[in-house]
Amino acid sequence: MSETIGVGMLGYAFMGRAHANAYKTLAYMTWPPPLAPELVSIAGRDADAVSDAATRFGFAEHTTDWRTLIADDRVGLFDNSGPNGLHGEPTIAAARAGKHVVCEKPLGRDGAEAHEIWQQVAAAGVKHMCAFNYRFVPAVRLAREIVRSGELGEIHHFRASYLQDWGAAESDAWRFDRAAAGSGALGDLGSHIVDLARYLVGEIATVSAHVATFWPDRSVDDAFEAAVTFDTGAVGTLEASRFATGRKNALRWELNGARGSLAFELERLNELEVYMTDSRPAAAAQGFRRVLVSEAEHPFIAHWWPPGHIIGWEHTFVHELHHLLTAIRDDAPVGPDGADFEDGYRAAEVCDAVVASAQSGERVTVAYR
Amino acid sequence: MSETIGVGMLGYAFMGRAHANAYKTLAYMTWPPPLAPELVSIAGRDADAVSDAATRFGFAEHTTDWRTLIADDRVGLFDNSGPNGLHGEPTIAAARAGKHVVCEKPLGRDGAEAHEIWQQVAAAGVKHMCAFNYRFVPAVRLAREIVRSGELGEIHHFRASYLQDWGAAESDAWRFDRAAAGSGALGDLGSHIVDLARYLVGEIATVSAHVATFWPDRSVDDAFEAAVTFDTGAVGTLEASRFATGRKNALRWELNGARGSLAFELERLNELEVYMTDSRPAAAAQGFRRVLVSEAEHPFIAHWWPPGHIIGWEHTFVHELHHLLTAIRDDAPVGPDGADFEDGYRAAEVCDAVVASAQSGERVTVAYR
Amino acid sequence: MSETIGVGMLGYAFMGRAHANAYKTLAYMTWPPPLAPELVSIAGRDADAVSDAATRFGFAEHTTDWRTLIADDRVGLFDNSGPNGLHGEPTIAAARAGKHVVCEKPLGRDGAEAHEIWQQVAAAGVKHMCAFNYRFVPAVRLAREIVRSGELGEIHHFRASYLQDWGAAESDAWRFDRAAAGSGALGDLGSHIVDLARYLVGEIATVSAHVATFWPDRSVDDAFEAAVTFDTGAVGTLEASRFATGRKNALRWELNGARGSLAFELERLNELEVYMTDSRPAAAAQGFRRVLVSEAEHPFIAHWWPPGHIIGWEHTFVHELHHLLTAIRDDAPVGPDGADFEDGYRAAEVCDAVVASAQSGERVTVAYR
Amino acid sequence: MSETIGVGMLGYAFMGRAHANAYKTLAYMTWPPPLAPELVSIAGRDADAVSDAATRFGFAEHTTDWRTLIADDRVGLFDNSGPNGLHGEPTIAAARAGKHVVCEKPLGRDGAEAHEIWQQVAAAGVKHMCAFNYRFVPAVRLAREIVRSGELGEIHHFRASYLQDWGAAESDAWRFDRAAAGSGALGDLGSHIVDLARYLVGEIATVSAHVATFWPDRSVDDAFEAAVTFDTGAVGTLEASRFATGRKNALRWELNGARGSLAFELERLNELEVYMTDSRPAAAAQGFRRVLVSEAEHPFIAHWWPPGHIIGWEHTFVHELHHLLTAIRDDAPVGPDGADFEDGYRAAEVCDAVVASAQSGERVTVAYR
Repeated sequence: MSETIGVGMLGYAFMGRAHANAYKTLAYMTWPPPLAPELVSIAGRDADAVSDAATRFGFAEHTTDWRTLIADDRVGLFDNSGPNGLHGEPTIAAARAGKHVVCEKPLGRDGAEAHEIWQQVAAAGVKHMCAFNYRFVPAVRLAREIVRSGELGEIHHFRASYLQDWGAAESDAWRFDRAAAGSGALGDLGSHIVDLARYLVGEIATVSAHVATFWPDRSVDDAFEAAVTFDTGAVGTLEASRFATGRKNALRWELNGARGSLAFELERLNELEVYMTDSRPAAAAQGFRRVLVSEAEHPFIAHWWPPGHIIGWEHTFVHELHHLLTAIRDDAPVGPDGADFEDGYRAAEVCDAVVASAQSGERVTVAYR
Repeated sequence: MSETIGVGMLGYAFMGRAHANAYKTLAYMTWPPPLAPELVSIAGRDADAVSDAATRFGFAEHTTDWRTLIADDRVGLFDNSGPNGLHGEPTIAAARAGKHVVCEKPLGRDGAEAHEIWQQVAAAGVKHMCAFNYRFVPAVRLAREIVRSGELGEIHHFRASYLQDWGAAESDAWRFDRAAAGSGALGDLGSHIVDLARYLVGEIATVSAHVATFWPDRSVDDAFEAAVTFDTGAVGTLEASRFATGRKNALRWELNGARGSLAFELERLNELEVYMTDSRPAAAAQGFRRVLVSEAEHPFIAHWWPPGHIIGWEHTFVHELHHLLTAIRDDAPVGPDGADFEDGYRAAEVCDAVVASAQSGERVTVAYR
Repeated sequence: MSETIGVGMLGYAFMGRAHANAYKTLAYMTWPPPLAPELVSIAGRDADAVSDAATRFGFAEHTTDWRTLIADDRVGLFDNSGPNGLHGEPTIAAARAGKHVVCEKPLGRDGAEAHEIWQQVAAAGVKHMCAFNYRFVPAVRLAREIVRSGELGEIHHFRASYLQDWGAAESDAWRFDRAAAGSGALGDLGSHIVDLARYLVGEIATVSAHVATFWPDRSVDDAFEAAVTFDTGAVGTLEASRFATGRKNALRWELNGARGSLAFELERLNELEVYMTDSRPAAAAQGFRRVLVSEAEHPFIAHWWPPGHIIGWEHTFVHELHHLLTAIRDDAPVGPDGADFEDGYRAAEVCDAVVASAQSGERVTVAYR
Repeated sequence: MSETIGVGMLGYAFMGRAHANAYKTLAYMTWPPPLAPELVSIAGRDADAVSDAATRFGFAEHTTDWRTLIADDRVGLFDNSGPNGLHGEPTIAAARAGKHVVCEKPLGRDGAEAHEIWQQVAAAGVKHMCAFNYRFVPAVRLAREIVRSGELGEIHHFRASYLQDWGAAESDAWRFDRAAAGSGALGDLGSHIVDLARYLVGEIATVSAHVATFWPDRSVDDAFEAAVTFDTGAVGTLEASRFATGRKNALRWELNGARGSLAFELERLNELEVYMTDSRPAAAAQGFRRVLVSEAEHPFIAHWWPPGHIIGWEHTFVHELHHLLTAIRDDAPVGPDGADFEDGYRAAEVCDAVVASAQSGERVTVAYR
């Protein structure tokens, strides 16, 4: 039998539901789990809602004060699924209390805050993971394996966009408030593709960017556009928007190497497009192939179903938290397969560079502290 | 709080895992659940394996004798996820013991057996569901809603194929044995598309079919091909194969009506293709549109995530068992949205007609008992 | 410089335009052409229309009596682009007059007529081609090359459908009249996929079919559906319809071999989907690849443009007539790369078997005379 | 009968072949043609090659001195299909001699040269067209019509990339030489998407760009990446590369408006993807629809074939030159449907801004002279 770990969670909304589902699912689908999660307590601001969430997801207790979780000795892992403005203080407090931590992205509302969170948590000596869950899409992981195998040759291009279309709606008010969210599409969507750029290609060297707010009286961006260069010499574009009508959750990227290319779109997350110049049967039959990433030998799929029985978006959290629990159990690093707080910080720094370039009109070199 | 219902399950393999996951997931994702499932006991032939399954999925008890489940008063719902040859006797016994029943497809190994199961179970007065889970794909349900709205006009065509490619592999031996399975691709895959044909269009009137076994010394079919007519006057083709190299779980169908068409493929189960002759903005912009069936107003999606955050194959079982639990709670019929044992029987009768046509070389009229 | 050949054409409608364009285009795009076509004369029933067509396409003369073409010594090639009911007599007369002949499909209105045309023309010793132009789609030719290379292993399945949606429209009246057309969707669309089945897999052994007429007072079929077997042991389905709303010119086929599969759709005729079990880089990256059949080494592409600069439907006629002119120049056979009248006859015999099976309700073995 | 116009052409390579084919084809496929082209003479540097080209395409004469064409009174239209470095002097000379002119893109090797060409030619009072042929793709024209109808609402985004993969090959040496070509991927590919951005959305206001040369010892760019803003407030990205392995002629763009979106890719040029928020049948069936732009009512299609019988890349030149001949016949402006030399100049100015931004690292406002 697996040993257990107590989980204290902050937040019961979209991300809270996704994380809670993942803890419950990994307990039996990744069998035996690295550690068996015990849902100790959940914190949230609305007493009725957090009570309901506790009943629903099986948390033994609930509280409107996140400090209760920090003080609870049964909690070994603090899961921060709260809004951006609540990432810093609770996460740092949890780490100082000796709890491992996972925090939703973006880690901080800007690079400075993210850096502070990383530094404080790292100093506490606990495991830390920034929930860039798209590293745990099987197709994305397969892409990383292909890139790292060298089969594609030198990478010349990476282009990514993350497009949604609910920017004109009146939902989730905190996401449109700079004080609470830090930024708009940039931190919410852009940070994901920045992380994937770093994960698949390497560090971003410079950004030449523009940021747009289409909606009147909104304090955060609705979209950004950037031309970027990488330390490796690769070049590309990054873009995110909440005003791309008809695009629901359209995170797409493509990378081109000297000997092959890869392409991905999140709305069809079970697929990876692969082009290889030396593919069989013959040069006359080369083309982008649609790899249905659902075979037992594909990343993470051994936990699931036979070939072609596709998984969904939520499964990325199962893989991610399974990875974290394994790192905790084995006292192993979260990176480089998972994103740790350094990755969370670095993504924030790139996002800051986007803002700086947009404001100054100049190409900005990403400078890490 | 929801009332509870005790579940006794037969089978812990592929289908057992899918059903167990569904009971556990629906308990919190469909909130509040219609009835809260309690996993009472699981039965299977291998003592070690069934013990492990019980631990893994949280069944309170386990047994190597399914009769133990029937005798257990705590069991209100008998879930038969066992191999085809074990569908009849245990399911009938459970119903006679007053338990509601859900049984995997195909209901029986042939029409006669399926009819007997249906009759016996119906006579017992319990709820019965045949697990044609693809009725619970959101895109399929949306398709049914569009068809029934009349927007497509008279339906002229339905064509479906269900293609896999593991037929040359040595796996799951019982599936290749006539005594245990009844048939091969026909009952395993073909029954699904027969059910969808009936669900979306109506009763199949005639079949003109061929059945093939490619592998030497195999007692079941590897593929079948059929031209079919419907009571409504629609015509089409049905086909299933385990020898379609590169097709992993490729259930595809298309239907054409006088004013529009629909198309679907299971490997991209979050999408429905819709063509309407009167679509906006103008005649010049008509085309098959890819509907990403992930909006809150789409069938079943209110249980899940925001638009574009796709679900997986396993979710169909959550929807299916949620439907069954609702029917039990409300004493409502399982059909026509879900498939009951009459549907299980009717699909078996069509499959028998395929075999009869293949053997006789004649067009066979589907005759229900 | 190439030698010339005089062309006499019957028909100035859809097919006449396509053939005339092809003669004019091949004269400079396939350079040097095997023979330089001289457009001698065109025949048609409407005097004004045929006069206009002659001016438009550059025929030196025009006539309302096709016998004028037969009597014209300058005509070395008789091109029959007329309606089905005018395929037999003029084509035979032309061959007897020593002219090479190309005739649109279907060769005859039924197997008997097609057989007679073939026999009479073959006896005359001239070159004869039945205009199954889809043999000359680069992707189809590439498919044939891959099949014949043996890379796919034994072929288990071939499934094809040819779907259009104008069956409820009032156009081209002769196509809906049995006396003029012989059949409806069967001969018009079905003959194409029968030819491709024979071209890519081999002879069709049996058909189990249904034929439907949806429109009242119509003497020809609107659709047919068939389960078929091949001499090789492969099995599959064939289907054609003029009532598939939203499908404009949707000829699709897929074939599955033991080690790979191919798939094609005519509305994206520049692409071939190829799946190979031993494709590079690794088993984990297998999938259907979209081959853009536009490279210089692909069939016919040397005549055209750089990679990715796609060709259209009309180009198939350029390739086809280039092939015929080459056969004439070199006194080489039209088959097996092109379809000759024996192929035209054989396709007609399979279509007759479809009708016979539909009428008798029995599986019909295709019997060639 | 149509009146005639004499054509004198400079260049017999890729573009020369495409233009010559278009003149010959439009003469009978667009019937009656606005003016009937007479191929008077063709000029090129290699005497044997230009002689062969004249024979092949039916030019009455040929010359190695383009000035011969200028001096020829029979020439009413000067077609400059030569390399970039030969765009200026011959085109200006032709215009001064009173001939209408069409010139391949990019009009000049930089904005200054393009401006000079435009000014000189406009002063001569002749018709002038810059051969941005993608304005004449039926799907692109349909897109423009939809945008201009206002159905999409305010346009927020335009993103385009033009990707090819032959940059590591040793072909067409002049294209890699700055003196002859002016730039690399930027002018060759980028100018096309700049023109489409202007055509579909409006003037580009600013660019923040990076330019890359991957190949050693090459004097031109291999790729560029740009974030752009439009005068309208729309924002987006532009990118072109000759190092996108597996992308053959992949010009793609997408635009997002407040009420709908459009997407296009040149390798499937017969299709336009259209999303409308108010599409029928219901909100539940919204999605990007694949419009097969091949109906008689679609732009340019009346010249061609029935629905679904797709056209190819070369057809864009037929439409383009048909447009020019119509403008000449009717003394009508080439713009705004076609691109005139002002459009050629403006595209060059945007390309210059890309270079300036890449060099300075600053956002550059596009300033027209």
